[in-house]
Amino acid sequence: MRIAVDAMGGDAGPQATVSGAARAILEQPGLELWLFGQHQQLTAELARLPQPLAAAASRLVLCEAPDVIDQHATAATALRHGGCSSMALMLASVARGEVDAGVSAGNTAALVALSRRTIGTVSGIARPAISTAIPTRGERSCYLLDLGANVDTPASRLVDFALMGAVMARHVDAVELPRVALMNVGVEAIKGSQRVREADAMLRAYPSRGAFEYCGYAEGGDLFLGHVDVVVCDGFVGNAVLKASEGLAEMLVERVQATFAARWSGRLLGLLARPSLRRLKNELDPVRFNGASLLGLKGIVVKSHGGTGSDGFHYAIKRAVQEIDRNLPKHLEERLAVHVNLST
Amino acid sequence: MRIAVDAMGGDAGPQATVSGAARAILEQPGLELWLFGQHQQLTAELARLPQPLAAAASRLVLCEAPDVIDQHATAATALRHGGCSSMALMLASVARGEVDAGVSAGNTAALVALSRRTIGTVSGIARPAISTAIPTRGERSCYLLDLGANVDTPASRLVDFALMGAVMARHVDAVELPRVALMNVGVEAIKGSQRVREADAMLRAYPSRGAFEYCGYAEGGDLFLGHVDVVVCDGFVGNAVLKASEGLAEMLVERVQATFAARWSGRLLGLLARPSLRRLKNELDPVRFNGASLLGLKGIVVKSHGGTGSDGFHYAIKRAVQEIDRNLPKHLEERLAVHVNLST
Repeated sequence: MRIAVDAMGGDAGPQATVSGAARAILEQPGLELWLFGQHQQLTAELARLPQPLAAAASRLVLCEAPDVIDQHATAATALRHGGCSSMALMLASVARGEVDAGVSAGNTAALVALSRRTIGTVSGIARPAISTAIPTRGERSCYLLDLGANVDTPASRLVDFALMGAVMARHVDAVELPRVALMNVGVEAIKGSQRVREADAMLRAYPSRGAFEYCGYAEGGDLFLGHVDVVVCDGFVGNAVLKASEGLAEMLVERVQATFAARWSGRLLGLLARPSLRRLKNELDPVRFNGASLLGLKGIVVKSHGGTGSDGFHYAIKRAVQEIDRNLPKHLEERLAVHVNLST
Repeated sequence: MRIAVDAMGGDAGPQATVSGAARAILEQPGLELWLFGQHQQLTAELARLPQPLAAAASRLVLCEAPDVIDQHATAATALRHGGCSSMALMLASVARGEVDAGVSAGNTAALVALSRRTIGTVSGIARPAISTAIPTRGERSCYLLDLGANVDTPASRLVDFALMGAVMARHVDAVELPRVALMNVGVEAIKGSQRVREADAMLRAYPSRGAFEYCGYAEGGDLFLGHVDVVVCDGFVGNAVLKASEGLAEMLVERVQATFAARWSGRLLGLLARPSLRRLKNELDPVRFNGASLLGLKGIVVKSHGGTGSDGFHYAIKRAVQEIDRNLPKHLEERLAVHVNLST
């Protein structure tokens, strides 16, 4: 199994990606990682790897890439000038089939635009959707999509998201009959935007044939209840919800810790509580749920959170491994081919 | 000071509202509350009030209202059949100027529709916006609007929200120069929906004359940083973000408690930690930040969270007291009159 890694992307760049890659290698026998980036920097990071991570170096292949796409560059800039960047070259190797998947922590808009151009989308999909698994109170996560790649999206696109999310839940998470809901303001049928109501009508009429169970509308808070496996929404809404959830989780974890530091008895408590609190922080840390999938491409691309460290990046690579293992693109393509046939 | 209360609304109905009203009375000398609802039920709840709450009874006036609007009724149903409901009669007394404000924990869609019809909106505002103060890491809260009353909203409406949010921050929270941001996907000017970009252009060009400082775009997570005082978005997005934040906070607080119950040493810790955890739960509980304002009406109406208990309902009443105290509708009307003049 071979995965291409954009080793320069993300706020921490190679410092996080090289170490994360090494960690993933150690946990995954038979995995080989191609690191795209500036050779000098990558070599320096490899040299800095402590044991036992340094042992992974033999399965880390360095591939020179002279440029780096700025974290704040526009998609247009990336398309025009990013051809020799670590991200673009990583995607090119995915497109050529030299590797089984690609992972990047870089600029999301650039990743979406470049992967669409380089790898291409499957029939019927105009642009990939971004989805990640949200932790819930239940046993399973809930996939939320789209997370920002598709804005002002028509009703038919929301239906595509539902199908793709269901395929992921079914084939990657082994959910036999994924429960799919459409995000809305309140749960009454009358409410909500025009497009959402259209999508609701289309999903109710859809001959799902065991591919998924459409559950109607869900409100923002239903995401965390564990009652549905996939929640579908416009990219603008999904992005706002995801970013707000991450911001809130950070604030709450910080307050939990501050609460314990507040008084002297609290400080003692804080000391005693530290292992529990650390476990909690790990549980809630978005890093654990890192690895957002770009769905609808002809290949596997996983987006790692830009601010993530080496631990998070290694989880993103593990996500890519999972998707390779379950042959996600093939299942997506099959499901969407059926869908296109139904539409025509 | 006199406030009308829809005593039948909310999941807990009079059980929460009567007790919450009594609590508010005790904390606010000179406040009189008119409780609208079914006389028999209200009298029963009053009789059940423990001391010291029972002492408030002399300033609680019961006003008979035969009907109750169902928590899941559509706005259309409420408009057509809700005329004798506790909510409608409460709003009528606000419209007639018999009271200074109205508070309800009932059906939000009905409240928006009925208040619009009964009380009316100020010039230039088609329908009221719902806003609430979000807790942040900074010293101040951040007002988020719209929270669901306005969906598929045009750019000019987003500008109205910005103005109204700024008035609230200035006159209720005494923020001298409120910092206003527009919610978007990422912070680059190129991104985001068409309408958001239009609103951005309008706000950049707006002669704010010290009314607010427009800060450009903010992402979902920026809500909690404390760097802005008002964040503006379409009602669909605001509703999803608010509901998701509440659901996440509930899940996290539950996990914090579960973390401590998990192991025997944790249980001991849990016991010791209980006061700290309770303080934390109170801090984060949406109840504390209860009381969503309906902005743009010719009067003050505060929406209390449907699932809230007596404590939360009393906070909603206190919010109404604040808005009366600072004469919020007058300031909103003045600011919006200037805006209408500028537009024509």
